[in-house]
Amino acid sequence: MAVGLDKLPELHPVDGIRLGTTCAGISQPDRRDLVVIELAEGAHTAAVFTRNAFCAAPVIVARQHLNKKMPRMLVINTGNANAGTGASGILDAASVCDSLSRLAGCQSDEILPFSTGVIGEALPISEINAALSKAYDDLNPAGWIDAASGIMTTDTVPKGVSCQFELKGRTVTLTGIVKGAGMIRPDMATMLAFITTDAAVSSSVLQTALSSAVIKSFNRITVDGDTSTNDACLLMATGKCSGAVIDTLDDEDYSIFLDKVTEVCKLLAQAIVRDGEGATKFVTIKVNGAESATMCDQVAYNIAHSPLVKTALFASDPNWGRILAVVGRSGIPVDAIEQVSIFLDNVCIVRNGGKADDYQEAQGQKVMQQDELCIRVDLGQGDRSTEIWTTDLSYDYVKINAEYRT
Amino acid sequence: MAVGLDKLPELHPVDGIRLGTTCAGISQPDRRDLVVIELAEGAHTAAVFTRNAFCAAPVIVARQHLNKKMPRMLVINTGNANAGTGASGILDAASVCDSLSRLAGCQSDEILPFSTGVIGEALPISEINAALSKAYDDLNPAGWIDAASGIMTTDTVPKGVSCQFELKGRTVTLTGIVKGAGMIRPDMATMLAFITTDAAVSSSVLQTALSSAVIKSFNRITVDGDTSTNDACLLMATGKCSGAVIDTLDDEDYSIFLDKVTEVCKLLAQAIVRDGEGATKFVTIKVNGAESATMCDQVAYNIAHSPLVKTALFASDPNWGRILAVVGRSGIPVDAIEQVSIFLDNVCIVRNGGKADDYQEAQGQKVMQQDELCIRVDLGQGDRSTEIWTTDLSYDYVKINAEYRT
Repeated sequence: MAVGLDKLPELHPVDGIRLGTTCAGISQPDRRDLVVIELAEGAHTAAVFTRNAFCAAPVIVARQHLNKKMPRMLVINTGNANAGTGASGILDAASVCDSLSRLAGCQSDEILPFSTGVIGEALPISEINAALSKAYDDLNPAGWIDAASGIMTTDTVPKGVSCQFELKGRTVTLTGIVKGAGMIRPDMATMLAFITTDAAVSSSVLQTALSSAVIKSFNRITVDGDTSTNDACLLMATGKCSGAVIDTLDDEDYSIFLDKVTEVCKLLAQAIVRDGEGATKFVTIKVNGAESATMCDQVAYNIAHSPLVKTALFASDPNWGRILAVVGRSGIPVDAIEQVSIFLDNVCIVRNGGKADDYQEAQGQKVMQQDELCIRVDLGQGDRSTEIWTTDLSYDYVKINAEYRT
Repeated sequence: MAVGLDKLPELHPVDGIRLGTTCAGISQPDRRDLVVIELAEGAHTAAVFTRNAFCAAPVIVARQHLNKKMPRMLVINTGNANAGTGASGILDAASVCDSLSRLAGCQSDEILPFSTGVIGEALPISEINAALSKAYDDLNPAGWIDAASGIMTTDTVPKGVSCQFELKGRTVTLTGIVKGAGMIRPDMATMLAFITTDAAVSSSVLQTALSSAVIKSFNRITVDGDTSTNDACLLMATGKCSGAVIDTLDDEDYSIFLDKVTEVCKLLAQAIVRDGEGATKFVTIKVNGAESATMCDQVAYNIAHSPLVKTALFASDPNWGRILAVVGRSGIPVDAIEQVSIFLDNVCIVRNGGKADDYQEAQGQKVMQQDELCIRVDLGQGDRSTEIWTTDLSYDYVKINAEYRT
């Protein structure tokens, strides 16, 4: 039931990247659940990870390895998050890296491990280690679609984005895949996103580009307000498209690169929301006219997290009173409510803190019945604005999260 | 499906209080939706109201009237909140007071109006004014149960609490009713609560007692994190049980009175949670070992509002990973996660930030299957603690809020 994600777009291979996927039987038989991604020698990798204080073992290990060496390989399993598993979880994540390093002929700390799935259960190491050679043997440049499937948990569709553009006089490719549908309120990162390019970009420029893009993309989405323990987003540049290296932010082509990375991150982040657990709607929330960025975020996220607004969205009910009630509890001054306007797409439903005089419910109803719509709040106080993306709250959200793990 | 609210307890009449209830046909025919409460001359009234900047017309009018005179009468309708109705909403609320004042032979500003129900629609003034005389004629000291029914919206059962105790050598009565099931995250007040006593207490002492009791009761509950536009809680003392007046906080009987008011407020507040929309569980969340009260509240409310924890509660799934993930995103220092312990009732499920060594899932499962349970988080950082009450998130919550108004 993903909203507006009818078909995975063409995922262009990226020179210097190979992907292999297999079924390791981690939580279900015969489903793809183990992915390895190989990076060509000399590739640079940038990463952002969850800021949840309770972070998973693979996140701890990946951070350590990344601090030491540029990675040559990633290994990702779904079905088990290896989170809340203490010291043995860390040993398990390291053991997977060890096994893969022997197959790949590289160092263990040149491998980054990622896990997603159920929290608090021991990683089934023997199943994973036994299946690693199958995944390794499957490595091929066209393995994107299988890999996008192999990292899914409650996702209903594989998700990826790909584009090609001119950089330094050559056509470069940017291809990424992502997983995530619930426990989505990324904080400096999101679920798992792996984005690659054959452009030549230095490590530090790559990290700056990723951090900047994440703020405008993965950090602007929420499905249910819950932050995962395993969030990670990687941007890897193989440099195989050997134009001149972008090694400074002053490089005239940096802004082209940054724009494209941001665009791909936004589309991937929005794909997570579109495939949000139980989602029947893709909702953009814009807040403008605020005095501060904090106030913008407070209003926007309070609307996005309000169970009453989310169930009204599910019911296609233009219940402006619920939206206004959320704005009213978001810390705005009492007399500021009289400056508030609210729009559903272009239909003004609230003006000066009350129902707009010329508003007819049929107009709001029409917008609410769309699969995709925008709620815009104008606070009338200042000139700060923001934009985030979210979903509705449906029976299926409850079903998925009440039945998951049981 | 209210949890543990099998039967309304006996509601003792309070000398000096009469209640009348009727069907005005506000949103449905033949359901009680209009209540008047008469206070004997000389009664004192204390009140707390919603802090939502978007507050309803009756709240504005009630605040004004209360600032001028001690009220002689309350008028409460359900089915329509008269919120987001602008200037005409205020005139409507005043008009209801006018009509009732003519029947009662008092001043219009000796009447406090209260409304609850759908936001953003005009109050059906003619229906209400036409039915007021029936409600007025129904005034009687034993009208508590009808009144408790007459203020309900999505509540499934009428809710009230009553007790008698010794004060100043006499037996005094404290009886209250409450409504509320959704849009429940009171902020200095709750939905509608009307508490009365025949004790003799001065206005200022009454207000202090109410404010103090509300902090420990109505301000410690949450169903869905949404704050109503119409919240109000009143404590009225008729003084008909004419012992000496408690007119100072130093009075030796003040603490007895405060304890009883707090106890009644707690039971009424908990009744709202027990009857929370779609609730199948009544959950106490305790946080201790925090460095600050803010940290306590942050952890407790984040757990109470997490859709993932709430759906796990609905599924009776002892999913400690979800709870720990919420604690992890609540602003505790990264290394503090290793001091965290989590208990379901007396079963320790998490110790030192990971699954407790001796924990067996069957133990957690057993607690989770109870209708009532306690989640306790020990942060191991300091000596601050808190306690709040909440519910799970069920299919019925979505159903109620997706279908309400349609």
